[in-house]
Amino acid sequence: MPMNAEELRTLSADDLQAVDAWWRADNYLTVGQIYLKSDPLLHTPLSADDIKPRLLGHWGTSPGLSFIYSHANRLIRHTGQDMIYIAGPGHGGPALVAAGYLEGTYSEVYPKVSQDEQGMLKLFRQFSAPGGIPSHVSVTTPGSINEGGELGYCLVHAFGAVFDNPDLIALAVVGDGEAETGPLEGSWKGISFLNPARDGAVLPVLHLNGGKIASPTVLSRKDPEDVRKLFEGHGYEVIEVEGSDIPGMHERFAAALADAYLKIKDIQAQARELGADGIPQGLADVPGNGEMPRWPMIILRSPKGWTGPKEVDGVVMEGTWRAHQVPLSGVRENPEHLQILQEWLESYRPEELFDEKGQPTEIVTRNNPQGDKRMSAIPAANGGNEYTPLVMPDWRGFALDFKPEERGTIKKESTRYLGRLMEALYELNPQTFRLFCPDEANSNRIGDVFNVSDRAFMEKTNDLDVALSRHGRVMEVLSEHNTHGWLEGYNLTGRHGLFASYEAFGMVCVSQTIQHAKWLEEGVQLDWRTEVPSLNILLSSTCWRNDHNGFSHQGPGVLSMVVNLRGDVVRAYLPPDANCLLDTAVHAFESTDRVNLIVQDKQPQFQWLTPDEAHVHCERGYGIWDWAGNEEVGADKEPDIIIACAGDVVTLEAIAAAQIIRQKLPNMTVRVVNVVRPQTLERPKDHPNGMSEQDFAETFTDTKDVIFCFHGYPGVIHQLVHGRPDADRFHVRGFIEEGTTTTPFDMVVRNRVDRYHLVMDAINNCKRTIRGGADVKRWCKEQLDKHEEYKVEHLEDMPEVRDWIFEA
Amino acid sequence: MPMNAEELRTLSADDLQAVDAWWRADNYLTVGQIYLKSDPLLHTPLSADDIKPRLLGHWGTSPGLSFIYSHANRLIRHTGQDMIYIAGPGHGGPALVAAGYLEGTYSEVYPKVSQDEQGMLKLFRQFSAPGGIPSHVSVTTPGSINEGGELGYCLVHAFGAVFDNPDLIALAVVGDGEAETGPLEGSWKGISFLNPARDGAVLPVLHLNGGKIASPTVLSRKDPEDVRKLFEGHGYEVIEVEGSDIPGMHERFAAALADAYLKIKDIQAQARELGADGIPQGLADVPGNGEMPRWPMIILRSPKGWTGPKEVDGVVMEGTWRAHQVPLSGVRENPEHLQILQEWLESYRPEELFDEKGQPTEIVTRNNPQGDKRMSAIPAANGGNEYTPLVMPDWRGFALDFKPEERGTIKKESTRYLGRLMEALYELNPQTFRLFCPDEANSNRIGDVFNVSDRAFMEKTNDLDVALSRHGRVMEVLSEHNTHGWLEGYNLTGRHGLFASYEAFGMVCVSQTIQHAKWLEEGVQLDWRTEVPSLNILLSSTCWRNDHNGFSHQGPGVLSMVVNLRGDVVRAYLPPDANCLLDTAVHAFESTDRVNLIVQDKQPQFQWLTPDEAHVHCERGYGIWDWAGNEEVGADKEPDIIIACAGDVVTLEAIAAAQIIRQKLPNMTVRVVNVVRPQTLERPKDHPNGMSEQDFAETFTDTKDVIFCFHGYPGVIHQLVHGRPDADRFHVRGFIEEGTTTTPFDMVVRNRVDRYHLVMDAINNCKRTIRGGADVKRWCKEQLDKHEEYKVEHLEDMPEVRDWIFEA
Repeated sequence: MPMNAEELRTLSADDLQAVDAWWRADNYLTVGQIYLKSDPLLHTPLSADDIKPRLLGHWGTSPGLSFIYSHANRLIRHTGQDMIYIAGPGHGGPALVAAGYLEGTYSEVYPKVSQDEQGMLKLFRQFSAPGGIPSHVSVTTPGSINEGGELGYCLVHAFGAVFDNPDLIALAVVGDGEAETGPLEGSWKGISFLNPARDGAVLPVLHLNGGKIASPTVLSRKDPEDVRKLFEGHGYEVIEVEGSDIPGMHERFAAALADAYLKIKDIQAQARELGADGIPQGLADVPGNGEMPRWPMIILRSPKGWTGPKEVDGVVMEGTWRAHQVPLSGVRENPEHLQILQEWLESYRPEELFDEKGQPTEIVTRNNPQGDKRMSAIPAANGGNEYTPLVMPDWRGFALDFKPEERGTIKKESTRYLGRLMEALYELNPQTFRLFCPDEANSNRIGDVFNVSDRAFMEKTNDLDVALSRHGRVMEVLSEHNTHGWLEGYNLTGRHGLFASYEAFGMVCVSQTIQHAKWLEEGVQLDWRTEVPSLNILLSSTCWRNDHNGFSHQGPGVLSMVVNLRGDVVRAYLPPDANCLLDTAVHAFESTDRVNLIVQDKQPQFQWLTPDEAHVHCERGYGIWDWAGNEEVGADKEPDIIIACAGDVVTLEAIAAAQIIRQKLPNMTVRVVNVVRPQTLERPKDHPNGMSEQDFAETFTDTKDVIFCFHGYPGVIHQLVHGRPDADRFHVRGFIEEGTTTTPFDMVVRNRVDRYHLVMDAINNCKRTIRGGADVKRWCKEQLDKHEEYKVEHLEDMPEVRDWIFEA
Repeated sequence: MPMNAEELRTLSADDLQAVDAWWRADNYLTVGQIYLKSDPLLHTPLSADDIKPRLLGHWGTSPGLSFIYSHANRLIRHTGQDMIYIAGPGHGGPALVAAGYLEGTYSEVYPKVSQDEQGMLKLFRQFSAPGGIPSHVSVTTPGSINEGGELGYCLVHAFGAVFDNPDLIALAVVGDGEAETGPLEGSWKGISFLNPARDGAVLPVLHLNGGKIASPTVLSRKDPEDVRKLFEGHGYEVIEVEGSDIPGMHERFAAALADAYLKIKDIQAQARELGADGIPQGLADVPGNGEMPRWPMIILRSPKGWTGPKEVDGVVMEGTWRAHQVPLSGVRENPEHLQILQEWLESYRPEELFDEKGQPTEIVTRNNPQGDKRMSAIPAANGGNEYTPLVMPDWRGFALDFKPEERGTIKKESTRYLGRLMEALYELNPQTFRLFCPDEANSNRIGDVFNVSDRAFMEKTNDLDVALSRHGRVMEVLSEHNTHGWLEGYNLTGRHGLFASYEAFGMVCVSQTIQHAKWLEEGVQLDWRTEVPSLNILLSSTCWRNDHNGFSHQGPGVLSMVVNLRGDVVRAYLPPDANCLLDTAVHAFESTDRVNLIVQDKQPQFQWLTPDEAHVHCERGYGIWDWAGNEEVGADKEPDIIIACAGDVVTLEAIAAAQIIRQKLPNMTVRVVNVVRPQTLERPKDHPNGMSEQDFAETFTDTKDVIFCFHGYPGVIHQLVHGRPDADRFHVRGFIEEGTTTTPFDMVVRNRVDRYHLVMDAINNCKRTIRGGADVKRWCKEQLDKHEEYKVEHLEDMPEVRDWIFEA
């Protein structure tokens, strides 16, 4: 029977007992994880031998995390609310692990860690120990979608989790240390993009406990009046709870949580009430009036290391940064410290909390929600517990149809084709697919999504705005951290999407990309984790075509980063044209548990492959383009030289170089190889996509030199071909940090991936002397000299040069 | 004669004319840069031929930037204040370029862009054109220390510029688009670390003009009351100016700027007043009382594209996102658009602003400050106009002295030695050296700086705080973006420092590292730019010793990134011990115009080189360690195998591997090469540190196999040795993303850089069959099997194993 508001706000004696017992039990297990390696139930007085030899972990934040968790459990029990718990201060790992253990989930997914004395011992011993679990909340923690290592992403993950999840509340605890990071500070604005009619809610609890690792935090020392203003300014209704008195804190926090919950329900009910047209009012097609809901947030001020030792060796511990990690460091050597630990553990009255077998007693378990309602078992935290693929149209309906003989004559903005596919995905998957983009969807030419969905925006709108409304589902805000992080949360709760950014600025959030890949790398090893949609990234507006924006916009480094990560999780794609992009995107959207990085420019580019050809080519990941070279088909002779390419702009140069050779040096045989998936270059033992020895030899021969023009930094290819037969014969050209404000053609010349350098490279590295080669090299040199001359003058005075350069 | 407050607040008729004329002139030059390729002074009505063929640039933000600039000029003229202008919306490049041009600075540094018609034409033509300048404020813009490409860093650069610069005000314009980024939102808190007695001031102007690229911004659509609260919450006193009416806006903004300025002076005067002890009150050694000054900030609301076309083709332009880039796109083809452009340019009454020769007239130049007071010529924006080296003690006073025969027997935390050196640097350079660290100085064992300086903190402090005060100069806040960005600003204004972080979390701000490197790469090519102190980065708490924190803390990717950047600017260092770290740090601190990345762990590690040896070794960057191998000195035979290493943990494994070979296979000759500067492996044509062919051959031979154990991802070494004789013989072992919660020794085993794998690798890759090799491989395998057995159990039960593992 659901409680009424007043009942929910008021802690009954029964609930007080349960909430407090559960909290004490969690705290007991937390301290146990940090200190104990035997006698987990304190059958005998602690001895030095019971203490771990190396004390690790973070006590300071833990009692606050468990306090909030215990109260959330009560709320869930009385309301049946679906809640996910996101622990920003993830270094409080033991508190969250203990929560899952008390709820029984931990033993369900790790049967050895059973709810008895032996299991409790395993729980304690595995913590931050070799072969065990990290000290932070991590992928191994049931109920978590947020790695507690790198700070800053707890709110972005929370918002991502509740978009299109109307029944879910993400309870996001923000530590006051984490609150100092840029990404976190930038993420409070998530509510400006959250629609109460369609999305769930985020309930942030800012936990001000006063200290980070080594000193106090800004927010904990600011005038509370200022702190309140800050969050009111962000648009929140601030509810404050402060103290350390028990039961007072229980009573006040229960009321605060109930108030916040009721406020959320109220906002949602209003927004979801149907209008005369049968559409929920929050989704009605009217310009926003700026009456954005004031979502509640809670500021909880409780001491760091609450319930731990107040003083150690005459130094104040509780409430200071000293309680951050391990408050008693000398327990094995110092009998006084050992005694403090004994009293500390006993202060939780473990005999009330665990029976003689070590099983949690009824006064504890009474506070557990049941089944899927447990936050440690909530399906949302495990990809929805069942992977649901996207409804995917046949991409050929969006493909660019042309005849093979037309290849290289049609120029199109390839990313527009992806935009059209995504328009269809929005229509076919109205609640499970979103685009996330730092204000660049139109700039990256994928703006066709706006035909079917506006940008989400809850702030005021007006008649001059375009494709912007409360019911929009395209996520644009000028923040790579927000958009990338929202998609991570959306993915890990089982939904699909794409993050699209300028190539150079993909670096802004590359740490998120890496951490997400690490999450997946660990996740796929856990049987109980459901597969989740891949994190798909499109980097466009690439280095080669940021000629006008200049050097700061020229950086293909994300590619360099991802090839270092584990190949079974991370895949890079460099489609050379529209049809290859479409095939690649479909493949990415249909994959699971991966980070798919697609790099392709947005400018008009020549189209090379028909849809059928593109499919075969992309599925394989690489291929010989017979039509671009001049080998006789079926000839078993190896070519004189191989020109390979990976990336759209460099593919054009490779083809143009081969064309020059074909025209000017018909006695020289050249093979053109295009690579869509650079990781196919790796040996099969190094990457699941790696081509077999035989395929590699058939493609690149065993001995002939390969002029490889690559989209990114050349080191990527050196790294990938390492260990292949005679890898030294790969002469890699790529972006060598020679950028500036110039023409697209000058960009390729400066970095020596242009057609003329490639031809000269080909002749120079050919194993036999090519008749006429010297003449052609001279001719190439002349072309480059001409280019040098053009460069110094302004383009507009030389239309013929301009065209030549822009067409190049 | 300085003005009094009321005079400063009130715009005289004379000043109104000058400020307005200067603003109009800047706007005229801005529009000219975007559109015109001929007839810059409009001698004849514009024709299509006068218009650039490709229209680039960003109009929207520009008139706001120039408006603020013009008023700042008036303030400077009347007060003599030193000011630096930091343009957050750096895409408004033409406005800032025009400002430098009007002030004469531009022609001083680029004489061809003279203050006459021909120069004006060059100014217009070079903009965002091949061979010209980027569309953003960049390193080529006099007066700038902030690249306008990647957004988010305008306030961090501003704060960095004014630390220890008491006479400087950084006027930082924050665009409302940039204000959406995480790093920017996190940077408002700079005032919590800014001491008015010792530092200068930052005056943020939040310029809400309503739109970013493609839609409105959150702050521009929020209730102004909320926006005010937000910044009051951050601790600012908010001054608001709104409108588009002229002269009203001039009058109101002049008053606002005067108010802000006077408030700053007032805060500074109070803090700088000497107490009874002769110490400025703001630096007195008393716990903070929380009465932090309320620094002023201005919120300026003016239309995007202000003074531009109000409507084009019936669509509203001014005040919307449509004015973001080029408001009139069809000027060459559409006579109506051409007409609008003509009227737009004429609306500034250029005939009043430029004489017939194209020189700015007196009503414009009257608003220019003189000489170094011009913001485009302020020395602070150019490294102080003269490079001042650090006062550097002899590092040998801080070195670890031991006898060569003691090498490998002493274990020390190497970074502590750097901490001691920095303690001395703080003392010797009381106003020009700072440490910047995201709350990890103690954790990274460089906390000896706290012996001589507290952490800076302006919020409330109390008796329990340690090394925390208003007068502290160590910069700690839990934000990589803030600390890295502050140091950049500190560097570019001519001062020295170190950014220290956990290795994995260096990735959080790697985009800042890259952008700063790009700044320097461009800067060193400009004669007028003074050399500046290098950006020095220490990454500690490395992947190999984050065994307890787990996989999320194990990421050596920053190394992979920096080796892609231009080698003349970026240097990587991997000191293997304390003395090498000291020598490297001194070298880094004394270098200019570089990004120096030093990677070394903080845990106790064996010490290898005496101070003298370390100096020779680090200066060269690599060397054969005779004492670790078993070649006969002076023998001209090549060894059977070379074991090379770069990085502290892997150096231990390399030495241990060589020791096993020496002991168990005396008939096999092994050479150990340690590399401190991995870039010495590059060919001299690829990197200035690259070793000569002869040196390379003498070190690595031409043919013998090299087992290379590397600190980071193996691809880095593959990339660096590419092109060296038979590079395929380099077998690189490094971090292959096999991390987890485990022991330090298991970390090296999992990634196969441990001694046993190295020995097996050495035997397998030796070109001759080694007698006894099979036995030793079997023995190695046994050791690894033993290790596997140990792994499955918990360490604490097996102290002898634990010691073995932890000592490994």
